[in-house]
Amino acid sequence: MSYRVIGKEVKRVDAVNKVTGKAKFTDDFFERDMLIGKVLRSPYAHAKIKNINVDKAKALEGVVEVLTYKDLPNIKYATAGHPYSLDPKHRDVADRTILTDKARHVGDSIAIVIAKDELIAEKALKLIEVDYEVLPFVLDPEKAMEPGAPIIHDDRPNNVISSVGQEFGNVDEDFKNADYVFTGEYETSVVQHCHLENHTAYAYMENDRIVIVSSTQIPHIARRIVAEALGLPWGKVRVIKPYIGGGFGNKQEVIVEPMVAAMTLAVNGRPVRYTMTREESFIATRTRHAMKFYMKTAVTKDHKLQAIHIKAISNNGAYASHGHSIIMSAISKFRPLYNFKSFKAEPKTVYTNLPSAGAMRGYGVPQIFFALESHLDDIAKKLNIDPIEFRMNNVIQAGHVDPISKLTVRTFGIPECIKKGKELIKWDEKQELYKNQTGEKRRGLGMACFSYFSGTYPVCLEVAGCRIAMNQDGSVQLMLGATEIGQGADTVFTQMAAEAIGIPVDMVHIISTQDTDVAPFDTGAYASRQTYITGAAVKQAAIEVKKQVLEIASRKTGLKVENLDIVDGKIIEVGLNRLICDISEIALEAFYDRIDSKPITSDTSVNVRTNAIAYGVSFAEVEVDMLTGQIEVLHLINVHDSGTIINPILAEGQVHGGVSMSLGAALSERLMFDERTGAPLNNNLLDYKLQTIMDTPNIEAHFVELPDPTGAFGQKSLGENPTISPAPAVRNAVLDATGVAFNKIPMNPQSVFEKFKEEGLL
Amino acid sequence: MSYRVIGKEVKRVDAVNKVTGKAKFTDDFFERDMLIGKVLRSPYAHAKIKNINVDKAKALEGVVEVLTYKDLPNIKYATAGHPYSLDPKHRDVADRTILTDKARHVGDSIAIVIAKDELIAEKALKLIEVDYEVLPFVLDPEKAMEPGAPIIHDDRPNNVISSVGQEFGNVDEDFKNADYVFTGEYETSVVQHCHLENHTAYAYMENDRIVIVSSTQIPHIARRIVAEALGLPWGKVRVIKPYIGGGFGNKQEVIVEPMVAAMTLAVNGRPVRYTMTREESFIATRTRHAMKFYMKTAVTKDHKLQAIHIKAISNNGAYASHGHSIIMSAISKFRPLYNFKSFKAEPKTVYTNLPSAGAMRGYGVPQIFFALESHLDDIAKKLNIDPIEFRMNNVIQAGHVDPISKLTVRTFGIPECIKKGKELIKWDEKQELYKNQTGEKRRGLGMACFSYFSGTYPVCLEVAGCRIAMNQDGSVQLMLGATEIGQGADTVFTQMAAEAIGIPVDMVHIISTQDTDVAPFDTGAYASRQTYITGAAVKQAAIEVKKQVLEIASRKTGLKVENLDIVDGKIIEVGLNRLICDISEIALEAFYDRIDSKPITSDTSVNVRTNAIAYGVSFAEVEVDMLTGQIEVLHLINVHDSGTIINPILAEGQVHGGVSMSLGAALSERLMFDERTGAPLNNNLLDYKLQTIMDTPNIEAHFVELPDPTGAFGQKSLGENPTISPAPAVRNAVLDATGVAFNKIPMNPQSVFEKFKEEGLL
Repeated sequence: MSYRVIGKEVKRVDAVNKVTGKAKFTDDFFERDMLIGKVLRSPYAHAKIKNINVDKAKALEGVVEVLTYKDLPNIKYATAGHPYSLDPKHRDVADRTILTDKARHVGDSIAIVIAKDELIAEKALKLIEVDYEVLPFVLDPEKAMEPGAPIIHDDRPNNVISSVGQEFGNVDEDFKNADYVFTGEYETSVVQHCHLENHTAYAYMENDRIVIVSSTQIPHIARRIVAEALGLPWGKVRVIKPYIGGGFGNKQEVIVEPMVAAMTLAVNGRPVRYTMTREESFIATRTRHAMKFYMKTAVTKDHKLQAIHIKAISNNGAYASHGHSIIMSAISKFRPLYNFKSFKAEPKTVYTNLPSAGAMRGYGVPQIFFALESHLDDIAKKLNIDPIEFRMNNVIQAGHVDPISKLTVRTFGIPECIKKGKELIKWDEKQELYKNQTGEKRRGLGMACFSYFSGTYPVCLEVAGCRIAMNQDGSVQLMLGATEIGQGADTVFTQMAAEAIGIPVDMVHIISTQDTDVAPFDTGAYASRQTYITGAAVKQAAIEVKKQVLEIASRKTGLKVENLDIVDGKIIEVGLNRLICDISEIALEAFYDRIDSKPITSDTSVNVRTNAIAYGVSFAEVEVDMLTGQIEVLHLINVHDSGTIINPILAEGQVHGGVSMSLGAALSERLMFDERTGAPLNNNLLDYKLQTIMDTPNIEAHFVELPDPTGAFGQKSLGENPTISPAPAVRNAVLDATGVAFNKIPMNPQSVFEKFKEEGLL
Repeated sequence: MSYRVIGKEVKRVDAVNKVTGKAKFTDDFFERDMLIGKVLRSPYAHAKIKNINVDKAKALEGVVEVLTYKDLPNIKYATAGHPYSLDPKHRDVADRTILTDKARHVGDSIAIVIAKDELIAEKALKLIEVDYEVLPFVLDPEKAMEPGAPIIHDDRPNNVISSVGQEFGNVDEDFKNADYVFTGEYETSVVQHCHLENHTAYAYMENDRIVIVSSTQIPHIARRIVAEALGLPWGKVRVIKPYIGGGFGNKQEVIVEPMVAAMTLAVNGRPVRYTMTREESFIATRTRHAMKFYMKTAVTKDHKLQAIHIKAISNNGAYASHGHSIIMSAISKFRPLYNFKSFKAEPKTVYTNLPSAGAMRGYGVPQIFFALESHLDDIAKKLNIDPIEFRMNNVIQAGHVDPISKLTVRTFGIPECIKKGKELIKWDEKQELYKNQTGEKRRGLGMACFSYFSGTYPVCLEVAGCRIAMNQDGSVQLMLGATEIGQGADTVFTQMAAEAIGIPVDMVHIISTQDTDVAPFDTGAYASRQTYITGAAVKQAAIEVKKQVLEIASRKTGLKVENLDIVDGKIIEVGLNRLICDISEIALEAFYDRIDSKPITSDTSVNVRTNAIAYGVSFAEVEVDMLTGQIEVLHLINVHDSGTIINPILAEGQVHGGVSMSLGAALSERLMFDERTGAPLNNNLLDYKLQTIMDTPNIEAHFVELPDPTGAFGQKSLGENPTISPAPAVRNAVLDATGVAFNKIPMNPQSVFEKFKEEGLL
């Protein structure tokens, strides 16, 4: 397929707006007499509120209202940003209220102050008198499941949110008959998204409806959840998403929106803004689940993988959020990569008194691939075989059908990705070079593979709307419910519309703000779904527009529709390649013909019932300082099989960001809590060691483009994918360099130093 | 036809927002670092700019930019807010530039200052040095047509913009054979709209597009005209219309929008606001054309009207604007009322050095009906017959086809309107009572009829779009390109959608802000078109939504679609009247069914190729102070035939406002100019005698509801209609009271006093 716009390095459509500072984010909007909301947060990890007195706070001049759980509807709701399901069993766990009478983690929401400015609000928070009954708490999920552990939610006496497993084949028999059985324990830590823009929203009322302007990835879902949290008809809520400063899944949670809605309701519809501080964001939004995996794998003497048995424990923190779904994502999405004969996963998602874990880029998959790809290297090492050969010996092939999800792998680029990555990093040459190192600084190579899905089908509904209206100059307005959250979605959709209609990209004007009052329905940005799912809607709407244009051109010229085409904004006669007229002439005709006036528009919705499995591989080269435990990544190459790449430079950007996130998880990031109190120890960007540009190695992004037949333009997912494999690749490179298997990340200098001592290297 | 929502006194959908001050008008929006634009206006009625020096103004601290005609594209454009026409001959007269090198009236736009605040901008205006060559000027249109008159636009050496006439029958023969021939001269003055909110707009750039937020009646047309004025592709301009504080036709002119667009372009896309002062608004927006009519009428001895010959002179001021179209409106819309055997109109629309006249509520029709209805009373008086009988003897009947426009009158309520009005004002009883008055205060009765159109068909294209999207709770979003400008359109459209779908009005959420980027295409609020034209689109879209709902209900229940209905938001089985389910269940199914998910939406456009003639009559009772010339209107009754009334209380509001406007024109309002300089004498609300609540008589609004078969719900126009007949009714009542025929309005105390002296009454 040859494209004119797809696959080109088109400049971001929001580039000028963003670099000139004109792009408006939630905090850039002003409302007359806007009030400020602030939230009183629990200092205790687990405590019952015996009494709460807000009289002094209310009496402070400038305070307009103070709210506690008593003032709000006692409705339990779920914050997870999933599409609603008609099946009640398929809905998220509704286990929280906007404000609580029982704190379940340090930072839980106790009371709200609404005041005329931030300083007064802060002062008023300190005047709220809360009498807590402090309860025993638990931070470790394995301890939380023990009998006698503190009960965090009354309806889950064992603190287990979900323990639904999956299996196929006969694991027990395959282990019985196995030539080798390997086991390993792997563990990841609590990390966080650290989007530049903290959660922020403001709300006001318009007649009898609540309008919320919010930094959200999922305006249509946020609308539903706010209505649910407040017991309102969904249509009474309107959510507007301006430009947003990063989300990474944390804004696929509906956290501040119900709060600001409750605030404006409490003050007769006056506008109220609530913007989290960074400190709050760390403990009162979501984190990535710390997970522990017990892996057991059967291998034949031909080095063929047979059975895999995974026990997984996911530390969900205080509220369910996406928990049950994330562990299912992990145990599902890793499957269509290696040919296991049998498989059994026994996951447990467990409440603890930590801040809630939820959706974060990769959605459980980075954790399971850290475990799996570390495990595979550990096995290869034990079998004394090359880890790449071991993998190549076990990968699936295109045509593979997952026994549980029934998804078919239509394109499988792993062999090509590995080949490319191996060459680029000079695997063989350097393996030779780094043999038998003994110095203070030792180098090594590692790699890791991954698989990921494009969207959530068949688990969730994948519906996307697209509306296109042609302007009189032949340019079009492109309206979507899908959201630009910094990833470049708007540019990619613009390219798709331009391609399918046949006009230059600068004739596509995409509406970047999603306003649920007018935007088509789409569930939003998550699960790396938009390019794949919404892309299908864009193509369908664009084709409809093109059809209408050509029908008018046919009416005007007498030529048959099939003999006409639109190329670069011109109507041409196919074959002869003869110019008929500019598209604007057709558009004017559509608007203003006295008899046939009917502006060219299309309004479509697609229900995508396919999934395209995307793949990739990371190659890492590291240098380990054997004395200090410092690990330096010298080189990190990601090679992705994401089908057709719509915009190479944006794709590269996605890879750079995702790799950096994974390197952070591998090497430095960890949100720490005081075991004596459950209080966060580093909930700020000084002490939480996010990767900076100074920490970032030379990252390379490469693509193996195998167009997937289910992608509207051959595309598969890419958004989350780069966060998956770098961490295990680095871990395997460290193993290669030092012989030491790090089974828990981050491998920060302290943990490396301790491990080296344990291993007798120091 | 029995309706559940149509015809009910539904509360305005914007009531709460407006009375609580939450409704946002253009000036309620803030942009960071918004600059202020101001316009330097000509002090001369006619002058060539020999030289202009902006150096000192530019040097003032806080001034960002100063623009003159040299800095802007030399593109002539037309400000009239008409739909574009594919036929170049049918387009408006493009005779102006944003800034001019030749002032054609006092107040013409010479230069623009953009500064960081208003005070600096004002100061800078004074620093601009203009060297004018002052030219002779002309204010009177008859003088302007004389040889040797100053030439205002080079391409119109006789200053005539347009003199296209119309005729049918044989006027000459009918006059030759006439029993009686009557002549009369009638004249109206320059008046103005005086909307509370002056013209205001601001603009900024988003990437490479210009965004304009403006108080406009016609966002989609404004977009086109801005693009034309600046030579841009139309799609590069986006116009947003918030709530607006009155327009009355003056915001059917695109005046400030090209200015703010030019301003933001000049400062790299920074936001710039330009808000006119009241003083500017009077001279730099539009006025109502002062018109002079020479009427000549042939009547049989049976008092049957035969021929009418009208010569009309319309004082258009300095730029063409709507001029040619307004005089055509006048001579067309008055026709389908009385049975003339022959008709000839010879209009002349003439440039003078007054501020430009343009669209104003009634669009030429109040002027011609002042002439015609005065003329008819003058004839009745001369024939010594009752003016009502005279009219009733000559009115058309339903079925009448206009010989020129070919429009068919389908419903004709004049006889019923007259009957009702006559009873209500106690015509016969009071006629008796007021015979032979001789005192200082004399009372009289008068009446006048009118006809008006619903929209502009067949002169212009009448296209309207409507989009409806159902929310998950069964409520709907109603999106239109038609504009709420204070008249209550949003409420009326809401009722229509609710009626046609079968849901309560509070389940219809109308989008009140038109944003050309997302709103369906509709030309906007003018020509009393929206209820009639856009109403057709709303009905069509609503029916489509209902169809989709019932199809899903049919799928769920197995019942046939034709056995299902929606009543008050419930799905019922027709006949049995059995409740099936709430509409929200169907909506949820539409959104979330795993197989059939497809949100319920409709996106329609109608091209309405009918017109419905609306009618009405005014009855006035006045008391004239014979010594001071003061005229007091004691009672004013308007009875309208506007087909089905969608919302009686809003309809009544329209009538009250329109009557007040007409009374102002009759009694007090006149924008005056110094004949020696062309400068305005009373361009402020203190000296311009707008009617206030203290001047307002007891106004009654009544309706004769004859559903018109071409109206989606039987409706015809109403918006402009009430402004037409009160003035001649009052004039005729004064004639009745005093025997004095006032042939020029306003009849303010000064002119009445002078006329009484002239007539020897004083």
